Amino acid sequence: MSMPRGFASDNTAPVHPAVLARLAVVNDGSAPPYGEDRWTAAALEWFREQFGSDSTAALVWNGTGANVMALRTITRPYHAVLCAETAHVQVDECGAPEFFTGCKLLGLASQDGKLTAEQVSRAVRGIGNEHSVQPRVVSIAQSSEYGTVYSVPEVESLCAAAHAKGLLVHMDGARIANAAASLGVPLRAFTRDAGVDILSFGITKNGAMGAEAVVAFDQTLAADFRYLRKQSAQLASKMRYLAAQVLALADGDLWLANAQQANAMAQRLAAGVRAIAGVTVTQPVQSSSVFALLPAAVVERLQRDFHFYVWNDLTGEVRWMTTWATTEADVDEFVAAIAGAMAERAPR
Amino acid sequence: MSMPRGFASDNTAPVHPAVLARLAVVNDGSAPPYGEDRWTAAALEWFREQFGSDSTAALVWNGTGANVMALRTITRPYHAVLCAETAHVQVDECGAPEFFTGCKLLGLASQDGKLTAEQVSRAVRGIGNEHSVQPRVVSIAQSSEYGTVYSVPEVESLCAAAHAKGLLVHMDGARIANAAASLGVPLRAFTRDAGVDILSFGITKNGAMGAEAVVAFDQTLAADFRYLRKQSAQLASKMRYLAAQVLALADGDLWLANAQQANAMAQRLAAGVRAIAGVTVTQPVQSSSVFALLPAAVVERLQRDFHFYVWNDLTGEVRWMTTWATTEADVDEFVAAIAGAMAERAPR
Amino acid sequence: MSMPRGFASDNTAPVHPAVLARLAVVNDGSAPPYGEDRWTAAALEWFREQFGSDSTAALVWNGTGANVMALRTITRPYHAVLCAETAHVQVDECGAPEFFTGCKLLGLASQDGKLTAEQVSRAVRGIGNEHSVQPRVVSIAQSSEYGTVYSVPEVESLCAAAHAKGLLVHMDGARIANAAASLGVPLRAFTRDAGVDILSFGITKNGAMGAEAVVAFDQTLAADFRYLRKQSAQLASKMRYLAAQVLALADGDLWLANAQQANAMAQRLAAGVRAIAGVTVTQPVQSSSVFALLPAAVVERLQRDFHFYVWNDLTGEVRWMTTWATTEADVDEFVAAIAGAMAERAPR
Amino acid sequence: MSMPRGFASDNTAPVHPAVLARLAVVNDGSAPPYGEDRWTAAALEWFREQFGSDSTAALVWNGTGANVMALRTITRPYHAVLCAETAHVQVDECGAPEFFTGCKLLGLASQDGKLTAEQVSRAVRGIGNEHSVQPRVVSIAQSSEYGTVYSVPEVESLCAAAHAKGLLVHMDGARIANAAASLGVPLRAFTRDAGVDILSFGITKNGAMGAEAVVAFDQTLAADFRYLRKQSAQLASKMRYLAAQVLALADGDLWLANAQQANAMAQRLAAGVRAIAGVTVTQPVQSSSVFALLPAAVVERLQRDFHFYVWNDLTGEVRWMTTWATTEADVDEFVAAIAGAMAERAPR
Repeated sequence: MSMPRGFASDNTAPVHPAVLARLAVVNDGSAPPYGEDRWTAAALEWFREQFGSDSTAALVWNGTGANVMALRTITRPYHAVLCAETAHVQVDECGAPEFFTGCKLLGLASQDGKLTAEQVSRAVRGIGNEHSVQPRVVSIAQSSEYGTVYSVPEVESLCAAAHAKGLLVHMDGARIANAAASLGVPLRAFTRDAGVDILSFGITKNGAMGAEAVVAFDQTLAADFRYLRKQSAQLASKMRYLAAQVLALADGDLWLANAQQANAMAQRLAAGVRAIAGVTVTQPVQSSSVFALLPAAVVERLQRDFHFYVWNDLTGEVRWMTTWATTEADVDEFVAAIAGAMAERAPR
Repeated sequence: MSMPRGFASDNTAPVHPAVLARLAVVNDGSAPPYGEDRWTAAALEWFREQFGSDSTAALVWNGTGANVMALRTITRPYHAVLCAETAHVQVDECGAPEFFTGCKLLGLASQDGKLTAEQVSRAVRGIGNEHSVQPRVVSIAQSSEYGTVYSVPEVESLCAAAHAKGLLVHMDGARIANAAASLGVPLRAFTRDAGVDILSFGITKNGAMGAEAVVAFDQTLAADFRYLRKQSAQLASKMRYLAAQVLALADGDLWLANAQQANAMAQRLAAGVRAIAGVTVTQPVQSSSVFALLPAAVVERLQRDFHFYVWNDLTGEVRWMTTWATTEADVDEFVAAIAGAMAERAPR
Repeated sequence: MSMPRGFASDNTAPVHPAVLARLAVVNDGSAPPYGEDRWTAAALEWFREQFGSDSTAALVWNGTGANVMALRTITRPYHAVLCAETAHVQVDECGAPEFFTGCKLLGLASQDGKLTAEQVSRAVRGIGNEHSVQPRVVSIAQSSEYGTVYSVPEVESLCAAAHAKGLLVHMDGARIANAAASLGVPLRAFTRDAGVDILSFGITKNGAMGAEAVVAFDQTLAADFRYLRKQSAQLASKMRYLAAQVLALADGDLWLANAQQANAMAQRLAAGVRAIAGVTVTQPVQSSSVFALLPAAVVERLQRDFHFYVWNDLTGEVRWMTTWATTEADVDEFVAAIAGAMAERAPR
Repeated sequence: MSMPRGFASDNTAPVHPAVLARLAVVNDGSAPPYGEDRWTAAALEWFREQFGSDSTAALVWNGTGANVMALRTITRPYHAVLCAETAHVQVDECGAPEFFTGCKLLGLASQDGKLTAEQVSRAVRGIGNEHSVQPRVVSIAQSSEYGTVYSVPEVESLCAAAHAKGLLVHMDGARIANAAASLGVPLRAFTRDAGVDILSFGITKNGAMGAEAVVAFDQTLAADFRYLRKQSAQLASKMRYLAAQVLALADGDLWLANAQQANAMAQRLAAGVRAIAGVTVTQPVQSSSVFALLPAAVVERLQRDFHFYVWNDLTGEVRWMTTWATTEADVDEFVAAIAGAMAERAPR
């Protein structure tokens, strides 16, 4: 009776069994509320292990909550946030960043969801001009909305460019695990060590139920965390159940295994469809999504049996997301269906 | 290894086993995100059963989220919200209501956490005066922060007074189940049918993990719900796990049984301490809390073994909360401890 | 000792003597504050004469104040405002529109500062999608930041396109007098009668000292004016001195004469420089500005003696503004200087 | 044809002739906009002379504008502002402080419009508690809404108490000149030198037309002034006309003479009515207002001929304001009218 497996979103995937199991483990009698419990302490310790003992993490409910809290931390309302024109903060959060911060978001053109250092340098304009918003933050997504991944040098040069202009860097890591799996380096290599100042760390898409974190790599940035979180309606009273989700994914690096599975399935899917004449993969496949162009009639035919989105109404480009729960059989069945639908078309 | 049972907060209680079990039930393959799944549909149907087929509920993460979304729905920034000076929205949400709405909150004096119709009528001032914020909402908590419960006629007369002045009524129902159990009437009898316009419906304190709802009793009020929820960072991507919590508590009216247990334990506790000379119960015990005055040295002694809060630093008044998980043994042990600590005092 | 006359901005011009004289006239003993005086009544009556007896005007301090009050009147924070990417609200108000409204501004590409009906229709996207801001307002400037003027049919078709999509139209009339002078039609022909819903009416650039108005063409829109104005810090206590500015410019249609003079001087300037080889006028000259390209060295040479701005750092395009106070002699002197500077250049 | 002289408000007074004259003086050809002109430079220099060479002033439109800009400078949205329950920022600005800052205002009880150091110390609660707004600012009015004036030691001890708790002090100086005249000390003696951190400096009520200033006594506080002013819609394009008002009042200390006249007239009025049996002066008369209780029928009778406000609907207390333009004849005529109306009453 559940939805047919599809490739619509990593939010359609269920929760990993280990996460559910850990919820039961922490459901053990009374515990202090609002994060004073020992499981939250352990979860925060895990973040310190990843990012350094002088980093500070705060658990929040969801990705938009993490992003707005991160941006509130480092902006005042006359600031501007530079991001890709396709960024989640720009197009998919119903204006929450503007609402919470008062800032203007400046969406920069991007074909692949990524920004370049040179682009950032050029886009920083109007500093000192009172008529203009003051650029203060570059917000990048890793992996990006197009499934592309910044290399470590790319993050480094982008952060250097931002800092050279007096800007801070926010990374929207709603899919940070997929980026880490793709790069094959520790989390801090492409975040803190590459110059990122504040991070939205996502686990919901990685197999959790509903929990994310904001991580600041500078204690002074974190000074206001507790008030910003509460005032942003992101403080969980029964925090241990958010912490449990972190702990389950941390155990044995399940977070990484989950991301590797999703990424591998995206590669398998890409390889499968590249072999089908008439289907064009439109973006580098670097994490857990495949973007492709195929005939509209075929898209329509496939959507009868599989759930996925047309990403770009103008071009017809579709997005196929894989998740920790996607299996080889899922992919193979889908590739076969695509091949079948392409073959069925009336010749032209 | 868990915290000793205490009487600090209903947020210290664990999640009811039925809620955990239901999370596992809905963890069944893929499901549409953002509330398009069948479990969310069922949860929303439950709310319509309680409040009428033309009411509209939206699930959110937490109580502050529910309150700010409810208030955003019915205010513009030059409005004022009238509430008790002790209300959660006034003193325990780090200014989230002001931040999200731009409105001024006007805290009215209250000994028991409740407002009266007459008080509301008197407090509506400055209508039409451009220098003054415009009173627009009366926000009441049911049950209140002092564990008191508005009777149905009290809610009715308060709503009538508010409406007569052109104001709407918001009810903060973070502990609505305890009020329903206390009154012994259906949920809608003291909400919609009594004149309430919009409701924050709490389940987290009632045995859930982290989920609440906003319910509007007027379709026009609900027109903006989806945008206000998303922009307020209160839209869960994997909504089915919030819905599951609602469904578990709805099943066989578990929500009511949970509240009845908490309320009964508060009565047992009140009865126990009333029998101890030197302890004064300071508020009517109508739901799941007991407020009391007892010697500071005794408070200190008790806090070595039990977790609870001094609610009023000036008077030394303490708050003891009971929950769905509080047992008779818990209460009896605590009463015995109080009696013992009182007896131990050096005579004076 | 004053600044050499230049072509930098209409904000550099002095106040028209008739405005100063009127300030002295109203400076007559006591008067009710906050707009309850008879001069304010007369000023508001003038607006009703221009725009209809059921229109409502409110006086405010400045152009940004008028724009944010107009936008606050017709938006809620999850809305989006569509405007030209070069619009004053988008680039020259330090993010005030986002700050005051919470909305996202969506800047649309424009070569001449104007939007088209077709462009607006195409840009209205995401209606009903909770992840997306909801387009609610099209904001156009008349005359535009590039000195171009919408024809009456252009405003009509743009408003029709906006209304067809459920959007309202705001007109930023910081230079509305210049547009009226250019079109040669009554004010309401290209505002209310063409479909505009709310108007920022500017007089400061037209010869006043510091006063603007917001005009709503629908009484329901104006219902909140008094509160929005006060809360936006735009309510003048000694309102009669703002009203006096309106009255002085209304008298004998001085506002129109002032605009005609500015426009005529722009035509004279354009004609003069078009005759100089190597100087390109880059925009249609329809109101009180001339945009031009000329060699950077010449620009630099001219700026020693005349005050004006390079408008586009990338192309070197300059902006020359004329005002009510610009004389034929001013223009002729400047044209001669340009011709001289061009001739002086070393041949290449 | 003008309003009969009254005692309603200092906003009913006309503009001092010297101010009008100075507007004409600066109306001399072109001048750079936005405060880059020489008159603005001179006005800002005057503020530095008053408050020290390392203070920074910014001119704004009106008192609410000054207050919100001052508060935005020193707060973030999770902060609280402590003020008298009768303060202008609390009751007379239509919620502008909440709207602009996001902060909660905490109104403290006050009989005379003033706060005490001890009261401030006691009211600072919840520091470090994430559920509570964080007290950050004490805002006091000098002179207060009840015409009372803080002595220099009172300001000093209040500032010391605030600073000891980590709070900053904002002074709402809408009537600062009256306070200076009352105290007979230099402006900086009861502002900067007494510990005030940021000041709203009013001149409109002192004889100007519409201009105020924000003055920060710490360069770091002033770092964002230009952006906060522009984004708050408080940047005048033709700034020279605001500067002219400052310069006119600065010349020969006209500001002080104007305040002395208003204060002297309040003393004359108080002396006059104190001699009338049945009239009670309810507040110390320390600046330019007299608060009094007298029979309701007498109030009604007097309001037929004179314009003034009943300040407190519950008690019937009235407020009589004097201004720079109030004459001895005005006062004597009014005192005689009061005496007459009291005498006319039917004996009881």
